[in-house]
Amino acid sequence: MKLVTFSTDTGPRVGVADPAAGVVRDVSDLLPPGTGVLQLVERWADLAPLLAGRADTLPLDEVRLLAPIPVPRRNIFCVGKNYREHAAEFGRSGYDTPSRSEDLPDKPIMFTKATTAVIGPDAEIDPHPGVTAELDYEGELAVIIGRGGRGISREDAYAHVWGYTIVNDVTARDLQRDHKQWLLGKSLDTHCPMGPYAVTADEIPDVTALELETAVNGERRQHALVKDLIFDIPELIATVSAGITLLPGDVLATGTPAGVGIGFDPPKFLHSGDVVEVSLTGLGVLRNSVR
Amino acid sequence: MKLVTFSTDTGPRVGVADPAAGVVRDVSDLLPPGTGVLQLVERWADLAPLLAGRADTLPLDEVRLLAPIPVPRRNIFCVGKNYREHAAEFGRSGYDTPSRSEDLPDKPIMFTKATTAVIGPDAEIDPHPGVTAELDYEGELAVIIGRGGRGISREDAYAHVWGYTIVNDVTARDLQRDHKQWLLGKSLDTHCPMGPYAVTADEIPDVTALELETAVNGERRQHALVKDLIFDIPELIATVSAGITLLPGDVLATGTPAGVGIGFDPPKFLHSGDVVEVSLTGLGVLRNSVR
Repeated sequence: MKLVTFSTDTGPRVGVADPAAGVVRDVSDLLPPGTGVLQLVERWADLAPLLAGRADTLPLDEVRLLAPIPVPRRNIFCVGKNYREHAAEFGRSGYDTPSRSEDLPDKPIMFTKATTAVIGPDAEIDPHPGVTAELDYEGELAVIIGRGGRGISREDAYAHVWGYTIVNDVTARDLQRDHKQWLLGKSLDTHCPMGPYAVTADEIPDVTALELETAVNGERRQHALVKDLIFDIPELIATVSAGITLLPGDVLATGTPAGVGIGFDPPKFLHSGDVVEVSLTGLGVLRNSVR
Repeated sequence: MKLVTFSTDTGPRVGVADPAAGVVRDVSDLLPPGTGVLQLVERWADLAPLLAGRADTLPLDEVRLLAPIPVPRRNIFCVGKNYREHAAEFGRSGYDTPSRSEDLPDKPIMFTKATTAVIGPDAEIDPHPGVTAELDYEGELAVIIGRGGRGISREDAYAHVWGYTIVNDVTARDLQRDHKQWLLGKSLDTHCPMGPYAVTADEIPDVTALELETAVNGERRQHALVKDLIFDIPELIATVSAGITLLPGDVLATGTPAGVGIGFDPPKFLHSGDVVEVSLTGLGVLRNSVR
């Protein structure tokens, strides 16, 4: 099932999208008042059966999609340098904190993006002139946690995955480098495009087979398979949850492959008018332009 | 005014503490249902007048205080290496990411602690055996944002401060070092003791005059004045809000002075039974023991 959040004059609503048929079923009236996708994920076992009720259908291309989880309950968990070739390109670029280390990480490099960075598909990325001059893209698969917990084993990890979405981990490279820890460089307003859909795990029989592609103005820049992750999804869930209780609805972006702007010489930073499209098999296309 | 959150059999309640008189006024019934300290801060102008109504008074030492904001709306903003002598001791310790750099930071080093790390005064710090073997303390002043906003200038910064509290930025040094980015080392469950009070800014005419002290088992380990911050409160608010919209209720821990466990040779890590007390003039004492 592909859940969406879309905006109307009376506020955000929840829908079930059918991209092949070009429609979205508006299921908000079937759910308790105030239920967004986040609350739906939190109470999935109770609420999912309600989604089968009668609901109006709207043309998908006539609704304005927001991020599936427009206001996450806390910061987005993220992983740095989690594809081999990207670890190397980032090391070479001079933007990494221990400067120019091309070594692969021994352990997952975890940081967060602030909740206020989240925007939906087709929303504009703010280039923040005066704050950053080095705007970059990072197409990523993101995991949405269903059942929370601590001390989740590798073996049990997929039982805690509710589903998947796409994230563009937009990065202000100068801030990322200059502030050493990455929060500020990763968290500027609008720098976490997410969507278009929150796709339930049952639609993705083998997530490692998914193919990720990022294009800028139609030019393919990133292309990888999820199975090329250095630390795979079970490892990431086990690592984070070893000491941190994961919560239903937590979003965990799994890292970006080679081909980001600073991977090129000279770097290919984003500029006003550029269009970034991140696609993942079965998860749709997340398209955003730079204001 | 000193606001507290305290637990009862029917759930958390909001109180106004008077430590000198040893009492807390239970003001929850004066507020709209479901109002916690977070919602009170968000709607302060509307709700603060209600606090003057008639309310029951309880002995302060008979209620169990929780963190003033037990569930923050997103991760806690934090700053690393923000006192000169601490920057030097951390550099010397070998635990910093660009190893053994004793240089002062050029720009604030910002990271976050996960919301699930928050505990209240007197709650136990989980040593997480098997996850970390190097548990350390960091006493800190934390700012609570009132009016949110982006692009807040240094000059306007204090107008956005609702008040202050104390945070112990408990740190798993091995995870902090090994994972390069600090999120995991800073975010283990129970590793963000906060409180005892959320103190309104009007009670603190000059925050830079506050004196911070951290004691472990009664032995003074940290002692500094807030005016010794490298990046002061206006600078931190201006830096974060340059590109990130600050929200009412956001908590920003301002950094720790010299005297943390890894500042000693050999390091003085925390162990089961140790009692950590962080005190700040006018903000009370945040006391937690290690389980």
